[in-house]
Amino acid sequence: MKKMINGVESLLEESLNGFAKAHNDIITFNHQPHFINRKQGKEAGKVALVSGGGSGHEPLHTGLVGIGMLDAACPGQIFTSPTPDQMMAAAESVENGGGVLFIVKNYAGDVMNFEIAGEMLDCNHETVLVCDDVSLPKDHSTGRRGVAGTLIVEKIVGAAAEAGANLQECKALGERVNNATASMGVALTSCTVPALGKPTFDLGDNEMEMGVGIHGERGREQMELTKASEIVEHLITAIDEDLKPKKGQKILLHINGFGATPLMELYLMYDLAEQYWQEKGVEVVRSLVGNYTTSLDMAGASITVTLLDDELISLWDAPVHTANLRWGC
Amino acid sequence: MKKMINGVESLLEESLNGFAKAHNDIITFNHQPHFINRKQGKEAGKVALVSGGGSGHEPLHTGLVGIGMLDAACPGQIFTSPTPDQMMAAAESVENGGGVLFIVKNYAGDVMNFEIAGEMLDCNHETVLVCDDVSLPKDHSTGRRGVAGTLIVEKIVGAAAEAGANLQECKALGERVNNATASMGVALTSCTVPALGKPTFDLGDNEMEMGVGIHGERGREQMELTKASEIVEHLITAIDEDLKPKKGQKILLHINGFGATPLMELYLMYDLAEQYWQEKGVEVVRSLVGNYTTSLDMAGASITVTLLDDELISLWDAPVHTANLRWGC
Repeated sequence: MKKMINGVESLLEESLNGFAKAHNDIITFNHQPHFINRKQGKEAGKVALVSGGGSGHEPLHTGLVGIGMLDAACPGQIFTSPTPDQMMAAAESVENGGGVLFIVKNYAGDVMNFEIAGEMLDCNHETVLVCDDVSLPKDHSTGRRGVAGTLIVEKIVGAAAEAGANLQECKALGERVNNATASMGVALTSCTVPALGKPTFDLGDNEMEMGVGIHGERGREQMELTKASEIVEHLITAIDEDLKPKKGQKILLHINGFGATPLMELYLMYDLAEQYWQEKGVEVVRSLVGNYTTSLDMAGASITVTLLDDELISLWDAPVHTANLRWGC
Repeated sequence: MKKMINGVESLLEESLNGFAKAHNDIITFNHQPHFINRKQGKEAGKVALVSGGGSGHEPLHTGLVGIGMLDAACPGQIFTSPTPDQMMAAAESVENGGGVLFIVKNYAGDVMNFEIAGEMLDCNHETVLVCDDVSLPKDHSTGRRGVAGTLIVEKIVGAAAEAGANLQECKALGERVNNATASMGVALTSCTVPALGKPTFDLGDNEMEMGVGIHGERGREQMELTKASEIVEHLITAIDEDLKPKKGQKILLHINGFGATPLMELYLMYDLAEQYWQEKGVEVVRSLVGNYTTSLDMAGASITVTLLDDELISLWDAPVHTANLRWGC
């Protein structure tokens, strides 16, 4: 294992320290318990958006705290849910009379801990569960996993909260975006969790994992590594079968790198995915290409599509100023 | 070699197609010869900034074309200089009465080809040579290499050009920023150039390449892999010895990932580097952390420091809207 760290135990704390210093104009870092919260512009009565999950997916979620997006994020240990006390403390630090909306990726540990935090929390709160990974069937026993579509839910609901939407409106909007979003990923290599010191799973030199999760969970099948055009077709067909966008439908197309795949390859995937939709008469009107929901040092990428309407486009375009997503301000 | 591509021959063209589609609000892609140029807001008389170099370092340079930064960028094949005809065509497409400033990383091929392009160009033009890599001595036979400091030169001169600085002022400013900037990098793994299909150099499981170049060029020495704090001290001591910032000096601290190193580790490096300067009484007033000057899928990172004054801070802070660097608009 080759990592730029001082030790497995101190990695998260040291990394968050650096993050907090580099972005001290917009966020603060609470050490005990760990959470990142927003520094500026919390209007009285604004719904407070709180997310979190295991670390190792940066910039999700810590890098998305700021104006027009999350109010707080709770980073757990790598690929490990944060604890209810983190979530409670984070929620209490940003609650400002409008209630708290938890945005939770659908993993058993995260779901349970956010539930416990909610039970202990002494203010209005709701939860949006993100489950955009179409590599698993809709009726899977634990439901579908939350993956790169989470950022889109956070951005759009963040803009609505900033514009004054109330708690129920934010929850309904989050669920609407989640239902309008589908993702699927492919891994060319495993990631290596520092505490394990070795790759999470094995892949042969000529293999890829189709439908992989963002912790290296097994996907649909191991397949022979093939051309990008076939890989993209595989991913996007699964998304198409799930969302079934009609001719003329406007969409957001997000190509998300898992960490170790160069931007050149992500843009190449974008080209292929955009061609697919163009041929179907589906209109790609917004895009996001880069490493946003990562899996440490895994090589691979996912494709996410969100069906848009004018309201969602306008919320997507609204100003955002976080450490790792920023426009309009 | 595991890459998300259709073929070595078509990779660059397909990737640029995707890039152009994803960012068609701000740039256009000229196919014959290859260059990316800025779409909006070219004021008459504004100095046109043109850069370029081998591909594989994305988002440098194509991702830095737009308002407040480059007017055009010429992507060569991977790790290969663009050709003089690309540079000439790019320059002619953006020249608007204010002359052309070439911003060139100091590599023999790039320097020669930009010189030839300049000789053929029928308008005022100047060149700023970037040579910020302090892993080589100042009197090295071919000079020092241009690495991650190039982005800083492009951002600051881009802001000045936008504000109406003339060609000589832009050239002088670029040289001033270059002289105030020092970088050094370390590789934990090699990158793999698609056309070669195998790693550029060999590193043992317990080795790192200190002072590595952004094409995987050998650096100062191969060393045993050690803790991040020692790695950062090694890099930053070299930078300190070169720039010799005094107590109270304001600096920009840029941690640049080479492509496959997670953001967690880059922020950890930022924390360590910031501590070093704090102990020296040097004030880190601006930061940039992320993968900006990459080396395909290489694991590793570089540290860049620029000595700032009020003028440079204000130019750094000025609005920028490119595909991969954006703030204030």
